[in-house]
Amino acid sequence: MYSLAELADRFGLEFTGEAGRMITGIATLAEAGSGDLAFLANDKYLPQLAATRAGAVILRPELAPRCPADCLIAAAPYVAFARISHLFDRAPQPVTGVHPSACVSPDADVHASASIGPHVVVEAGAVLAADVILGAGVYIGHDSHLGRGTRVYPHAVIYHDVRLGEHCVIHAQAVLGADGFGFAPGPAGWEKVCQLGGVRLGDRVEIGACTTVDRGTLGHTEIADGVIIDNLVQVAHNCRIGKNTAIAGCTGLAGSTIIGANCTLAGGVGVVGHVQLCDDVHVTGMTMVTRSITQPGSYSSGTPMAMTRDWKRNAVRFSQLESIQKRLAALESRSKHTDKG
Amino acid sequence: MYSLAELADRFGLEFTGEAGRMITGIATLAEAGSGDLAFLANDKYLPQLAATRAGAVILRPELAPRCPADCLIAAAPYVAFARISHLFDRAPQPVTGVHPSACVSPDADVHASASIGPHVVVEAGAVLAADVILGAGVYIGHDSHLGRGTRVYPHAVIYHDVRLGEHCVIHAQAVLGADGFGFAPGPAGWEKVCQLGGVRLGDRVEIGACTTVDRGTLGHTEIADGVIIDNLVQVAHNCRIGKNTAIAGCTGLAGSTIIGANCTLAGGVGVVGHVQLCDDVHVTGMTMVTRSITQPGSYSSGTPMAMTRDWKRNAVRFSQLESIQKRLAALESRSKHTDKG
Amino acid sequence: MYSLAELADRFGLEFTGEAGRMITGIATLAEAGSGDLAFLANDKYLPQLAATRAGAVILRPELAPRCPADCLIAAAPYVAFARISHLFDRAPQPVTGVHPSACVSPDADVHASASIGPHVVVEAGAVLAADVILGAGVYIGHDSHLGRGTRVYPHAVIYHDVRLGEHCVIHAQAVLGADGFGFAPGPAGWEKVCQLGGVRLGDRVEIGACTTVDRGTLGHTEIADGVIIDNLVQVAHNCRIGKNTAIAGCTGLAGSTIIGANCTLAGGVGVVGHVQLCDDVHVTGMTMVTRSITQPGSYSSGTPMAMTRDWKRNAVRFSQLESIQKRLAALESRSKHTDKG
Repeated sequence: MYSLAELADRFGLEFTGEAGRMITGIATLAEAGSGDLAFLANDKYLPQLAATRAGAVILRPELAPRCPADCLIAAAPYVAFARISHLFDRAPQPVTGVHPSACVSPDADVHASASIGPHVVVEAGAVLAADVILGAGVYIGHDSHLGRGTRVYPHAVIYHDVRLGEHCVIHAQAVLGADGFGFAPGPAGWEKVCQLGGVRLGDRVEIGACTTVDRGTLGHTEIADGVIIDNLVQVAHNCRIGKNTAIAGCTGLAGSTIIGANCTLAGGVGVVGHVQLCDDVHVTGMTMVTRSITQPGSYSSGTPMAMTRDWKRNAVRFSQLESIQKRLAALESRSKHTDKG
Repeated sequence: MYSLAELADRFGLEFTGEAGRMITGIATLAEAGSGDLAFLANDKYLPQLAATRAGAVILRPELAPRCPADCLIAAAPYVAFARISHLFDRAPQPVTGVHPSACVSPDADVHASASIGPHVVVEAGAVLAADVILGAGVYIGHDSHLGRGTRVYPHAVIYHDVRLGEHCVIHAQAVLGADGFGFAPGPAGWEKVCQLGGVRLGDRVEIGACTTVDRGTLGHTEIADGVIIDNLVQVAHNCRIGKNTAIAGCTGLAGSTIIGANCTLAGGVGVVGHVQLCDDVHVTGMTMVTRSITQPGSYSSGTPMAMTRDWKRNAVRFSQLESIQKRLAALESRSKHTDKG
Repeated sequence: MYSLAELADRFGLEFTGEAGRMITGIATLAEAGSGDLAFLANDKYLPQLAATRAGAVILRPELAPRCPADCLIAAAPYVAFARISHLFDRAPQPVTGVHPSACVSPDADVHASASIGPHVVVEAGAVLAADVILGAGVYIGHDSHLGRGTRVYPHAVIYHDVRLGEHCVIHAQAVLGADGFGFAPGPAGWEKVCQLGGVRLGDRVEIGACTTVDRGTLGHTEIADGVIIDNLVQVAHNCRIGKNTAIAGCTGLAGSTIIGANCTLAGGVGVVGHVQLCDDVHVTGMTMVTRSITQPGSYSSGTPMAMTRDWKRNAVRFSQLESIQKRLAALESRSKHTDKG
C-alpha cells in the first residue's frame, strides 16, 4: 500500500490530487476501483478515461485535465507503469539454499545466496553466482555459468558450456544449448556434424517458455544484453542477436542468421539462414525474411485475410500473375500500335 | 471384449447382424479384422467399405445396406466411435497416492483420491481436488487449483495462481502461467512489466504438449469450458478464448486477443494482438489474422503452393501488382478515349 | 591432437603439406589458427580461403592449389568435416549405471550398460537396450522400448507404447506419444477420441528440442530410419515420414500426412492433413502444402518480403486480383473487336 505522493516521489513523477490517497493495487482503466492505480499509455483506450473509477491514473501531462481521478503524470506512462507494477508483485519468492532433493555436483561452484529448488540437477564445473534462482527440476549442464541474479523457472534445460550473464530470466521448458541441426548428406544418409560450440547470453536477457536456443557448430550462438525473446521461438546454431532486440512468439531464425540491435520481430516471423539484418529493423507478423536487410525500416510479406470464398478466387489469380502480366504487356503493345496506326 | 448387442445397448445405437458377435478391438476399415469394429465417418473412405474385413462397422443408417459386415448404426458415426474408443483404452492408469519422491507442501490441499507421480512438486496453497492425476515431474505452483478429475501429464509446469476446472487434460511440457511478453521501451532498453494476473481454465479444457498459455498482465488469461488446444500453440497474456473453440497446432495468439465460442483455428494460424473474433469463425491453415472478425464464416490468407520455378515468377509479379494495376487503369482510360474517338 | 597424416589415414582422404602437422581443434576459415583444421564446403566462403590462418583446410581437390595452408582433400568436404568433427567433441559423457534418485520400475528391462540420470522415471514394461543414455529427468512410459545406443537428453517425455530404434537422439523437452488431436463434434461440445495407437521410430532418428510427435489414433505414427527433425516441429497423429527425410524447425504436419523418403522440408512449413508427398520433394520455407505432391521437385508458396509501405500497396491489389483479371479480359475482348472493326 503506497500513498500517491510516495509513488510520485519514488518514481520521479508529478501528481495531481490527494497526496495521501492510498493505492492498494493496479488495474486497467475499465476495471480499476477507488484503491487502484490505472494507466493510459495507448490512445486506443482514451475513450475509457472519462468513465474510469480508478483512484489515480498514470498518464501524459496533456491528458491530466481530462482525467476524472487523481493523476500520476509521466512523459512515458507505460514505462512508469512497468516500474510501478513490480511493487504489486505477489509472486512467491523462493527460499535461499539447496533443496535436499536437488543433485548438485560437489565440483559445481554455487554461491551461498543461490536458491536451488527441488529435483534440480547441477553438473560439475557449473558456476552459479550470487542470488541465482533455479526453479524445480531445472537442469544445468557441465561448465555452464549463470551470472548474478539470473532466474531459471521450473524444468528449463541448460546443456553444457552455456553462459548466461546477470539478471537473465529463463522461463519453463526453455532449452539452451541443444545440438544445432547440422548434418551432411553422406552416401548412406545424413551424417551428424558434432555441435562443438556453446551458447552465450548477455545480461538482462529474457527467454520465453518452450523457446529453444541451439549451441553453435563452431563458435557460439550469441544473444546480446537486453534481448527479450517470447515463447516457442527457435534460435538456430550460430545465430547472433544484437542488443535490446525483441522477438515475439512462434518466430524461427535459421542457422547463422545475424540480427542487429534494437530490432523488433513480430510473431510467427521466419528468417532464412546466413542472412543479416541491420540495426533498427522491424519485421511484421508472419513475414518470411529471405534476404539480408541493410536499411532500417519496416518489412513485410504475406497477403491480407479475406473471406475464404473471396480469397480462393484471388489466390487462383496469384498463380496466373505471370500470364496476367504477359497479357497486359500484349495489350499495351497493341495499344501503342493502334495509336500509331 | 463386448458383444455387438452390448455395444448397441450401452451407446444407444441400433445394430444389424449377429447380436452375440464379440468385438475385441477397434481399427480402420482397411486394417480391421473379424474381431474388430471399424467406422465410416468420412465419405472419403466409402470406397473401402465393400472390401472391409471388419466384424462390424459404425456407420450412418443409409449406408448399412452397402456394408458387407454387421452394422452399428449411428446418426453421428464419428461421435459414436469417439465414445466407444474409450472402451479399448490400454493406457496404464496411475495408482492413487503420493509417490515418496514427490515434494508436496504441507500447506497444499491434496484430496486423498489424487495420484501424485514421482518427482512432482506441489507448492503451498495449491489445491488438488478428487481424482486429480499428476504425472511424473509435474510442477504445481503456489495457490494454483486443479478441479476434480483433471489430469496433468509428465513435466507440465503450472506456475502460481493458475486455476483449472474439472476434467481438464494437460499434456507433457505444456506451460500454464509463464510471464506474458510485456516490456516497456525505457531509456536504456526494455523494462519488464510485472505480470500480475493469472490463468483461468474452465472445465474439460485440453491443452497439447509444449503449448504455452501466459499469465495476464492485469486480470487473467481465460480459456472457457470445452476448449481444445493442440500442441505447440502460443496463447499470450490476457487472451480470452470462448467455449468449445478448437485451436490446431503451431498457432499463435498475440496479447489480449479475444476468440469467440465455437471457433476453429486450423494449424499455423497467427492472430495479432488486441483483435476480436466473433463466435463461429473458422480460420484456415497458416492464415494471418490482422483485424477483428465480426461475421461468422471462413477466413483465409496466403498463396497457393506451386512448383518453385513457377511460384518465383508469380511472386515477382506480386511485387509489381501496384504497377500492374496502374498499367491496367491507363489502358482502360485509353480504351475509353479510343471508343469515344 | 591428431597429425594431418593420421586424419587423412583415418578418414580415407588425401593430404598435401606437412604429414606431422598437429591439429588440435577445428574452426571456420575466418577464425582458425595455426593448430586448427578449417573446411570449405560452400563456395560462398571461397573468398575467405586466401586469407585463412588455418593449419590445414578440408576442401575439394580442384581448390587445393588456391589454399595457402596444408590440405585435406575430400570429394565431399562437408561429409569429411562432419566425420572429423566428432574427434573434437568435448561434451561430457555420462557414467554407466542408475542414479540413486531415479525411479526405475522393477518390471522394466534395463541393460547393465545403460546410463540412467538423476530423477529419471522408467515405468513397468519399458525396455532399455545396451548403451542407452537417459539424461536427467527423462520419463519413459510403460512398454516403451529404446534400441541400442539411443540417447535421450534431459526432461524429454516418452509416453507409453513408443518404440525407438537404435542410435536415435532425442533432445530436451521433446515429447513422443502425447495424444493426437482427435475430437468428435458432439451435441454438447467436443468428445475426445481415445488415441489408441503408439509411435514407432526407426534407427538413427534425431528429434529436436521441444518437438512433439503424437501417438496414432488407430495404428501408429511412424518415422523411418535416418529421419532428422529439428526443434519445435509438430508431427500429428498417424503421420508417416519416409527414410532419411529432413524437417527443419517450426514445421507442422497435420494428421495422417504421409511424407516420402529423402524429402527436405525447410523451416516453418505447414502440411495439411491426409495428403501425401512422394519421395524426393523439397519444400521451401514457410510454404503451405495444401494438396498431395506426386512429382519430385521443389515447391513453394508465399510472397516476397518488401518494405512495409510497398508491400501494403501490393497486398491491397492481391485482394483485387479477381477484378483485375476481369478488367483485363474485358480490355482483351474490346481490343479484338477494335481490331476486327
